[in-house]
Amino acid sequence: MISIDELKRRYVPKVKPIIWDSDRKMIILLDQSKLPFETNYIELNNLESVIDAIKKMKVRGAPAIGITTAYGVIVGLLERRPSLQNVSEVLEIISEKLLSTRPTAVNLKWAIDRMISKSLKISKEVKSFDELIENLELEANNIFNEEFEAELRMGLYGLEKLHDGDVVLTQCNAGGLATGTGLGTALAPIKIAHALGLKVSVIVPETRPWLQGARLTIYELVEEGIDATLITDTAVGYVMFRGMVSSVMVGADRILSDGHVFNKIGTFKEAVIAHELGIPFYVLAPKSTFDFEKKVHEVVIEERDPDEVKTVMGKLITLQNVKVYNPVFDVTPPKYITAIITEKGIIYPPFSKNIRKVLG
Amino acid sequence: MISIDELKRRYVPKVKPIIWDSDRKMIILLDQSKLPFETNYIELNNLESVIDAIKKMKVRGAPAIGITTAYGVIVGLLERRPSLQNVSEVLEIISEKLLSTRPTAVNLKWAIDRMISKSLKISKEVKSFDELIENLELEANNIFNEEFEAELRMGLYGLEKLHDGDVVLTQCNAGGLATGTGLGTALAPIKIAHALGLKVSVIVPETRPWLQGARLTIYELVEEGIDATLITDTAVGYVMFRGMVSSVMVGADRILSDGHVFNKIGTFKEAVIAHELGIPFYVLAPKSTFDFEKKVHEVVIEERDPDEVKTVMGKLITLQNVKVYNPVFDVTPPKYITAIITEKGIIYPPFSKNIRKVLG
Repeated sequence: MISIDELKRRYVPKVKPIIWDSDRKMIILLDQSKLPFETNYIELNNLESVIDAIKKMKVRGAPAIGITTAYGVIVGLLERRPSLQNVSEVLEIISEKLLSTRPTAVNLKWAIDRMISKSLKISKEVKSFDELIENLELEANNIFNEEFEAELRMGLYGLEKLHDGDVVLTQCNAGGLATGTGLGTALAPIKIAHALGLKVSVIVPETRPWLQGARLTIYELVEEGIDATLITDTAVGYVMFRGMVSSVMVGADRILSDGHVFNKIGTFKEAVIAHELGIPFYVLAPKSTFDFEKKVHEVVIEERDPDEVKTVMGKLITLQNVKVYNPVFDVTPPKYITAIITEKGIIYPPFSKNIRKVLG
Repeated sequence: MISIDELKRRYVPKVKPIIWDSDRKMIILLDQSKLPFETNYIELNNLESVIDAIKKMKVRGAPAIGITTAYGVIVGLLERRPSLQNVSEVLEIISEKLLSTRPTAVNLKWAIDRMISKSLKISKEVKSFDELIENLELEANNIFNEEFEAELRMGLYGLEKLHDGDVVLTQCNAGGLATGTGLGTALAPIKIAHALGLKVSVIVPETRPWLQGARLTIYELVEEGIDATLITDTAVGYVMFRGMVSSVMVGADRILSDGHVFNKIGTFKEAVIAHELGIPFYVLAPKSTFDFEKKVHEVVIEERDPDEVKTVMGKLITLQNVKVYNPVFDVTPPKYITAIITEKGIIYPPFSKNIRKVLG
């Protein structure tokens, strides 16, 4: 297997959703709310602008929000320039403001906690505020790099499941826009295969109601020069029936210890049809996605605003007062899943046993 | 079982897509291209307006186009008022113009042929042009009524599969807008159940790319006062998984003698998931939908304009130049189908044997 260092030389993401400008000490953020129509970068050089970007979904996807938050803590500190003694007090205010943007985003809290803990650890060692910032920049860079390396490893394991000429069906956006690194989870093996000279194509369902497939996945595949075909969500079954699909690769929002996978609405039906037709169905997700506590009936599936279904990009498509059911996620039972691919290795059934074995 | 005459007293369609105004000798047509936002009737009192209505999809659905065409022949004759000797000559011109609107619409040709054959048969018996028109009005009314009665019978057979409190998942629009009668095929049992006092709800997938579910099925169910819930196409599997669906009822565009069903894209995936989860999957279609000639590999699945996928109601949802695959129909193998419900009775597997047995 190719080494991670060698792979880093051969694959550089074409899409850079989050750039840290170390000279000017600011985040240069690709505004995802304008994609795919405009590739527009915005400068986040104060806390308010970071908060606004997260709230208005200019950055989205759990890992991408985490990375943005980590750099956001630095931006917030630089804006206030507290004395070293007052740093922890100011961090508390910054943390509170950032947490209020999307209260349920786990990665957001995780990133803040990591930055605060780093800060507390070194605040007694450093000689100046600038030295503190330097160390925090390194920590935020680490968060970014650890994410990127996990995706590279996941991609390399996933590469074992790809062959020259393969056509992969995906769902939603499990790409570099969602993770912030430009690589992604489900799209990682595909991008790496492409970089290493394999011919791999992707079929992308539009993924209503938010159209992440049509808007984001298509955008990043086209930017990477990877062959991509857009279909409606209605055509998902038929492309498999027609024999157009070599394998299915999707991401995950949460994976339970028995292998139940919670992911974007529509994943379940892809899994059932793939299983019925004997097409391999792979879930790609880092270790941080696994939830060893909850049982399947304990996970609440979020239902969102009916307007998301009643409109497409602001245009009403049905009667204004119609009843709507809008679940955001669905759950795929382990029996429909061929393997779960993580940065620690490929996990095969029986998942109840092998998830713990591989993830340790 | 309730008689058809009794049923006609108890159920009157609330939506009237095609009305023949016998006094003013014109078609009063519900403009389906404006639904569900405007309930707008237009008057078709010359051949040009009939042709325009068919071309611009103001009327759509095979049986609805057939009925409109039958009345359209009368409108065309009245506009020209030929002598009795010249009727067949004028009919030929009218026929040619109507056929040019949607060359592949089978019901269109069928309706014209039936009107011409009736005209030829009676033109020697009738004393005046007005008497001829009177007879042709009866023939067009017959076409309408035969369609409506077939749907009532289909609905009564389908009623055997419904229970109080049932929730039916459908797909696309297999309703009275598509057939022109206001009743429909897949929606017939549901509307009849509702009229007879049963509580039945319907889950309606939006059905991209054309959104017939969101636009048409929702409209006619709401008009009938039937409980309807709109979902995205991505949620089709999950509503079944959650146990929200009692049965699936869909229409058909073509059914082969071995039970393969060609219908709107998305039908296949509903069938596979219903089969996997043990939910009954019913196809409702009149005898005229059956094709005893073709084998499954001989039926060409139409692929349509990529712009239908790239846009929603005129709004671009992805990159302008992205590759698109846009099949309009899919095919559902017989093993996923619980029964096919026709006006002649319910057909159970093995379909190869029982389709001929029931349809004669």
